[in-house]
Amino acid sequence: MAENIVIIGAVAAGPKTACRLRRLNPEAKITIIDMDNLISYGGCGIPYYVSGDVSDEKELRSTSFHVLRDAQFFNNAKGVKVMIRTEVTKIDRQNRKIDFTSLDSGEAGSMPYDKLVICTGAAPNQPPIAGADLPGVHYVSNMHQAIAIKDKLAKGQVGRAVVIGGGAIGLEMAESFADLWEVETTIIEFMPQILPKAVDRIFAMMLTNHLRQNGIQVHVSENVQKIEEVEDGYKVTSNKRSLETDIVIMAVGVHPRTDLALEAGLQVTPRGGIVVNNRLQTSDPNIYAAGDCIETTNLVSGQKVVAPFGSLANRQGRVVADNLAGIPNKFTGVVGSFIMKAFESSIGSTGLSLESALAAGFDADRVITAQTDRAHFFPTHAVIPLQMVFDKRTRQVLGVQGFGPMNDAVLTRIDTAAALIAKGAIVEDFSNVEMAYAPPFATALDALNATANVADNLIDGRLRTVDLDLFLAWMEDSSSQPDWLALDIRHPKDAKLFKDEFKELWLTIPYVEVRQRTAEIPTDKTMIIICDAGTRSSEVQRYLDSIGQTNNLVLGGGFNIMRQLSPAWWPKQ
Amino acid sequence: MAENIVIIGAVAAGPKTACRLRRLNPEAKITIIDMDNLISYGGCGIPYYVSGDVSDEKELRSTSFHVLRDAQFFNNAKGVKVMIRTEVTKIDRQNRKIDFTSLDSGEAGSMPYDKLVICTGAAPNQPPIAGADLPGVHYVSNMHQAIAIKDKLAKGQVGRAVVIGGGAIGLEMAESFADLWEVETTIIEFMPQILPKAVDRIFAMMLTNHLRQNGIQVHVSENVQKIEEVEDGYKVTSNKRSLETDIVIMAVGVHPRTDLALEAGLQVTPRGGIVVNNRLQTSDPNIYAAGDCIETTNLVSGQKVVAPFGSLANRQGRVVADNLAGIPNKFTGVVGSFIMKAFESSIGSTGLSLESALAAGFDADRVITAQTDRAHFFPTHAVIPLQMVFDKRTRQVLGVQGFGPMNDAVLTRIDTAAALIAKGAIVEDFSNVEMAYAPPFATALDALNATANVADNLIDGRLRTVDLDLFLAWMEDSSSQPDWLALDIRHPKDAKLFKDEFKELWLTIPYVEVRQRTAEIPTDKTMIIICDAGTRSSEVQRYLDSIGQTNNLVLGGGFNIMRQLSPAWWPKQ
Repeated sequence: MAENIVIIGAVAAGPKTACRLRRLNPEAKITIIDMDNLISYGGCGIPYYVSGDVSDEKELRSTSFHVLRDAQFFNNAKGVKVMIRTEVTKIDRQNRKIDFTSLDSGEAGSMPYDKLVICTGAAPNQPPIAGADLPGVHYVSNMHQAIAIKDKLAKGQVGRAVVIGGGAIGLEMAESFADLWEVETTIIEFMPQILPKAVDRIFAMMLTNHLRQNGIQVHVSENVQKIEEVEDGYKVTSNKRSLETDIVIMAVGVHPRTDLALEAGLQVTPRGGIVVNNRLQTSDPNIYAAGDCIETTNLVSGQKVVAPFGSLANRQGRVVADNLAGIPNKFTGVVGSFIMKAFESSIGSTGLSLESALAAGFDADRVITAQTDRAHFFPTHAVIPLQMVFDKRTRQVLGVQGFGPMNDAVLTRIDTAAALIAKGAIVEDFSNVEMAYAPPFATALDALNATANVADNLIDGRLRTVDLDLFLAWMEDSSSQPDWLALDIRHPKDAKLFKDEFKELWLTIPYVEVRQRTAEIPTDKTMIIICDAGTRSSEVQRYLDSIGQTNNLVLGGGFNIMRQLSPAWWPKQ
Repeated sequence: MAENIVIIGAVAAGPKTACRLRRLNPEAKITIIDMDNLISYGGCGIPYYVSGDVSDEKELRSTSFHVLRDAQFFNNAKGVKVMIRTEVTKIDRQNRKIDFTSLDSGEAGSMPYDKLVICTGAAPNQPPIAGADLPGVHYVSNMHQAIAIKDKLAKGQVGRAVVIGGGAIGLEMAESFADLWEVETTIIEFMPQILPKAVDRIFAMMLTNHLRQNGIQVHVSENVQKIEEVEDGYKVTSNKRSLETDIVIMAVGVHPRTDLALEAGLQVTPRGGIVVNNRLQTSDPNIYAAGDCIETTNLVSGQKVVAPFGSLANRQGRVVADNLAGIPNKFTGVVGSFIMKAFESSIGSTGLSLESALAAGFDADRVITAQTDRAHFFPTHAVIPLQMVFDKRTRQVLGVQGFGPMNDAVLTRIDTAAALIAKGAIVEDFSNVEMAYAPPFATALDALNATANVADNLIDGRLRTVDLDLFLAWMEDSSSQPDWLALDIRHPKDAKLFKDEFKELWLTIPYVEVRQRTAEIPTDKTMIIICDAGTRSSEVQRYLDSIGQTNNLVLGGGFNIMRQLSPAWWPKQ
């Protein structure tokens, strides 16, 4: 008899499981059940629908050949039955059946299954803030919310917006408001930086700088305390300020929807996701789970994580379908690849941040470089700051982060790094990875290779860098490191602005003259060697070391990094 | 006593070796000797200098911080002595010295070495064609040639150009003539396709089509027989035509410069490069070699190859320097990553082509897909045809090729693939590689993942594709496969043009109606299932198979591929 497969959830993992399984098993009876009427949509596209880049919400729910993925489509084209507006109320494992209720008619029913797949996704976190449930507070959790938000924008009801939460969704929503709609937009983030889970502080600062340049107010380390209705909209009050606004976007993370699984007695990690093996089977071998509702393994740290990404949901759906069809496919975990557009910039990461690597117990350190994406003589070249986090003892590369212009330059390095990190690659693997080269695409020694070479030098003691946070503090207040002197080896015209400002604390000897003018460099001070990308500084450090002047540190990534941070002391042109 | 290191050749591998070694070993005496006065240049940038993208040839010889890399620079900034316009005439291994002659003064001298590094590069092949040495025939082999060519363009002396050789350099030069300078440009290639070493025929056809759309004449399978001076320039005569032209670019490949090494009795592969171990030591342990003059190993095929790429020369220079300094670094071989700009397109490859994989004895096959680079609802999305070559028995991925718009979309997939291929990855590794996803950058299931999934289906017998060459032939002349019928499952308006043309050979049933209209599909014919990307066709094949109608083949990549090839039968809009 044909197997009876029931799938709960029709957004990403569910439909993927169903369609792949149908191709593998033409006999099976496949049913997807979802509470919503809008299904199978690209949720990650919501900010681009709100922004206007995508004009119609139906595009997010259509195939690449412009057919709407509704219940009828799944039935006719895919041979998959979809029950919409239907809530599964109970999983009865003993009798292998589920109970459900129609949300429209209120009618209840039950349905047997041979295999069940739970794809219940994630729900937005609702912080305990007074007013978090007011009608002007939107959670970007489904298409209905997206449509409601865009509707307000289109009707001209939104001149001011407050986004609570500086994660990827909050930032993308902020851009969608500020860019085409020219809404006055403010982001409030509880943590000391935006994108706290995705990137380290320096990279968050680069992005913050770019957001501010594009007119977005960004407040970090700030705790929203209440939201109130006021005459002309809403008032958001934090521990630091009050903001009047027309709309509030609440984007403070998501958590796996595990109620059904918990009630059915399946193993669920407290405050985590549904526990699955690498075949994506739950603690009941007849029940699989996939997508945002499960917990998986971070392949670098070995720790259990929840990784709510649409791309993973798709991959997991394929794995579930394969296993249901008897193909022994595995989903072993994630490295955590991330990429985001922000106006004219892009930011990405894969693997562990320095912070998370240290927290996971690695003997971790990092290098930051500021090479160009393309040949420096090619007109469209731009600096792409890259960070590599590694274990100093094992030389394993733990993570890579990048920031650059809005093209695929950062993506290229992140994807390549993700491939290597998942394979447990060491620094040497990154030095040697054969990035394709032509001047319009890369540099002869690609920025990713070069970053690995810098890491190699650091690990082997051929490079000592200054802590960027200490350096930033010193530039703000030079008394914070009383024995430091800057050794600026850039062209005198670039160095002049700083020389004028820092005077005797700022020694300027152009790179090409260092070997001839070594006597001018004091030996009783800690010299912070500064250039634009860090490479010439490293070379000067090697030279000074070779003549016994070792009291010096390189500013890794040089002023190319500082320029991206645009700190208060950076000269305004 | 300080070691005495002599390096022959000052373009890429030589200077890289010298500068890295200087950083590792401040004591060593380092001398680079080169015949030319123009040294340390980005040779791959020559087409962009000729095109005008790079305005001054000095930019190709400058650092990223705009300092000219001449002999003085190496001496002052790097602590490396460079002797220009000096020819090394002999390597005396017995006495560890080299003899040299100044090309300007004619003075001869000799110099001892403790370690010698040969970076003599590659020389352009000079085909046995009458007239190949005429003054209007340029080999793109050094900066002087580049300057001479651009000089002619700038003076308005070039209205017509013939490029002999359809490899990367020939194609890039052709673009540089045709694009900004609007020169009438013709490419003549001896082999049946352009880029014969880099990509398979289908991808070469896509590029050929794009070049032709941009006004370049491309002739393949054509043998140039002579070049003559005529009244108004030159005449190039092939076995098929005569062309009058103002300039001829000869770009028929390069070969390692190994004369010095051969004369010194070092091991050199006949018609190949200098033999080195993975420390880049030649058969004389005191002599290293790096760059275009050596032979290396293709990591996929295991075969010895010459891989004259600037990016590899840089990496090899680092390895030589490390070993000279006592750091046991290795260069184990290449996968052969390649990327090229052509007008508004890019083309790339890594690993083996299908042709070379079969020649190397693999049980190789390939799939071609036509997914989009970005989310299909994101405005800037474009189709990027990808090919994956794999071994059907071991599932090892042997190569990936891509064609797409002029951005980094193809590069991203090529670099990621190169990282995996170098690690011996199998199809499953490509299915699972965690490509970062956001709609402006990728699709939820990245095109590279999707291509691997298609390969997985093919290997496991869940997909049967039609040979693209046979299909192209059938479209030209349907009698070539008398039992074939097209089953076009696209939207009727897309299918109509073909239905009108092919009539009873062209069955049209839209994808969403196939399950309802199965009875209309004949069982006594071989159905070629056609859609736009190949995915819906695969699904329909699975469905037809499931009801016992197995006499069908999928057009892999669908009409998205055919559109890129723009064959003669493709409807002109």
